[in-house]
Amino acid sequence: MASMIFTDCSSSTTARLLPFRRSRIRGDGFFFNRRLVSPFHVRPLVPASLRTSPTVHSSPFATPVISASMAVESSAKIIDGKAVAKQIRDEITAEVSRMKEAIGVVPGLAVILVGDRKDSATYVRNKKKACESVGINSFEVHLPEDSSEQEVLKHISGFNDDPSVHGILVQLPLPSHMDEQSILNAVCIEKDVDGFHPLNIGRLAMRGREPLFVPCTPKGCIELLHRYGIEIKGKKAVVIGRSNIVGMPAALLLQREDATISIVHSRTKNPEVITREADIIISAVGQPNMVRGNWIKPGAVIIDVGINPVEDAKSSRGYRLVGDICYEEACKVASAITPVPGGVGPMTIAMLLSNSLSSAKRAHNFQ
Amino acid sequence: MASMIFTDCSSSTTARLLPFRRSRIRGDGFFFNRRLVSPFHVRPLVPASLRTSPTVHSSPFATPVISASMAVESSAKIIDGKAVAKQIRDEITAEVSRMKEAIGVVPGLAVILVGDRKDSATYVRNKKKACESVGINSFEVHLPEDSSEQEVLKHISGFNDDPSVHGILVQLPLPSHMDEQSILNAVCIEKDVDGFHPLNIGRLAMRGREPLFVPCTPKGCIELLHRYGIEIKGKKAVVIGRSNIVGMPAALLLQREDATISIVHSRTKNPEVITREADIIISAVGQPNMVRGNWIKPGAVIIDVGINPVEDAKSSRGYRLVGDICYEEACKVASAITPVPGGVGPMTIAMLLSNSLSSAKRAHNFQ
Repeated sequence: MASMIFTDCSSSTTARLLPFRRSRIRGDGFFFNRRLVSPFHVRPLVPASLRTSPTVHSSPFATPVISASMAVESSAKIIDGKAVAKQIRDEITAEVSRMKEAIGVVPGLAVILVGDRKDSATYVRNKKKACESVGINSFEVHLPEDSSEQEVLKHISGFNDDPSVHGILVQLPLPSHMDEQSILNAVCIEKDVDGFHPLNIGRLAMRGREPLFVPCTPKGCIELLHRYGIEIKGKKAVVIGRSNIVGMPAALLLQREDATISIVHSRTKNPEVITREADIIISAVGQPNMVRGNWIKPGAVIIDVGINPVEDAKSSRGYRLVGDICYEEACKVASAITPVPGGVGPMTIAMLLSNSLSSAKRAHNFQ
Repeated sequence: MASMIFTDCSSSTTARLLPFRRSRIRGDGFFFNRRLVSPFHVRPLVPASLRTSPTVHSSPFATPVISASMAVESSAKIIDGKAVAKQIRDEITAEVSRMKEAIGVVPGLAVILVGDRKDSATYVRNKKKACESVGINSFEVHLPEDSSEQEVLKHISGFNDDPSVHGILVQLPLPSHMDEQSILNAVCIEKDVDGFHPLNIGRLAMRGREPLFVPCTPKGCIELLHRYGIEIKGKKAVVIGRSNIVGMPAALLLQREDATISIVHSRTKNPEVITREADIIISAVGQPNMVRGNWIKPGAVIIDVGINPVEDAKSSRGYRLVGDICYEEACKVASAITPVPGGVGPMTIAMLLSNSLSSAKRAHNFQ
């Protein structure tokens, strides 16, 4: 979990791009199946949460296309990840049902949790609930903190061999006495719904190759752009952060869609000069409110992956969650923006479900 | 081979960035072994070809560091790939000899050539000669154009099992009736000295992972920057072209060295606006003289991977070779530049030898 820092947009200093701290989000996945989403594109639905917003176009999704560099006078369109994730879960529910009826197979996702971290337990519980909500079977193994690496590997091996399991997810972080890399490598590539296997990343990077799964959070970012009809091809896209789980695969995905990408990171001098050129910004660094309004080109589209707790005496919890982007300032400059929470966050689990479904379909050659 | 086009820098039109055509260069690789090159860095030698040049610093390699954004009044320093490649071959010769004496093992490289393409035959001959020159054993299989895929796979399988072979290279292009991907995938990853396997590319893309081999041409580009003491960390680097064999891995390598990268390609609008921001440009698109002087920031360092034949009535062959960069114009703006020919070209085979040596060392756990 990111450390708690008191930071808000009212600070007059420009935030510094510090070394990336791991996002609290983790995910998995393939590009969302276009066949699956097509009904959505044909008859776009306006999520309830958007219907009353004065800033929202009456048809906020596929048409008309939002130009990523279109200047706006008013505040930015809100990219409602919660609503889109709900829509995707509904589509997955329908597909899971169709598959069950057609061939009698139900997709299955296995999650391995080691130790007693409360945040990890919450994530696993949320994933399990999400599976249930769409009709995907979930399998959970909860091992004590002092388990051996061998015990974890034994369970992975069991799930690898189990035909009712189509995706395996090892909840991170693992206890410090375990070798994360060797444990993750033990998950067979056909069930690696997290998409973190180097073979998947290599295929993602290479033209003419297709990964089995794309990591969920970056996949969710691109899916939001697609669902809101935001053009990527030919646009300048800047990714802030170069992590293996978000920044790097997000950049590879944007390039696959013919964006011209730049990747800003902790060693970049004057990152704001680069972000100011971007039609699309995806930020995944875990620095609260780092990207100020003057880092953003008027009309740019902003996808904010950061989920950072900052002190807030007015909140009953004593803190509130903010993104990497200074939302209040960005709203006045951008043409569209994801809120935090409620933007990219809900998409990650939706993409995990999507990957699990894709995996089951592939295993059974079901179209 | 790139088509022959009459293009020179005197054209008043700005060249358009067309879809990438495959470079004539191919290669393989790990990052060049730092231990191996250390003598070079400690006592830099001035290649004979550089000694009389008025534009060359008396110690053109590691020290003093060339600032990638240093403005120059005079013409650019020539990055002499031929001289550096010679130096690397000398270092490899010494290492091959040391290995043979210590453990009695000689590195071996196997090349499979299918068909009668003259250019392919020339490349294979050059690789064989290069192996001989450093003491690496070379094995060659030359199959007729109408061979079956099975025959090629049989030879690959034989080399995979042969402990005297440490690297396997299938000369491309293959005849059209063969599936290039399935043939390349048959080479076992420990002998994939070309470094094109997705697993290697994935490891190259991921922080905290190490590829077994890095593709030779991009590896050669980075090696030139290292040998000339050109700082990469914190610099803005623009790669022109996003091919699997040069552009994409070159960008990944630059990012591993903490450059801030942008990747320009055929769908990029106004590429010159992006290249003008770069401290380092690596171009690999196969468009003769595409990058004009006004695309380049004063003091930038230019690595030109393109090898393009253009008509030249004055040449006895009727053509001459030029790069992607308009050399005459770039020389007046850049602080350092690779010539074509004699820049990146000779580095590719040197890196192939380096990868073959690394592979043999790894196979025998020889430091």
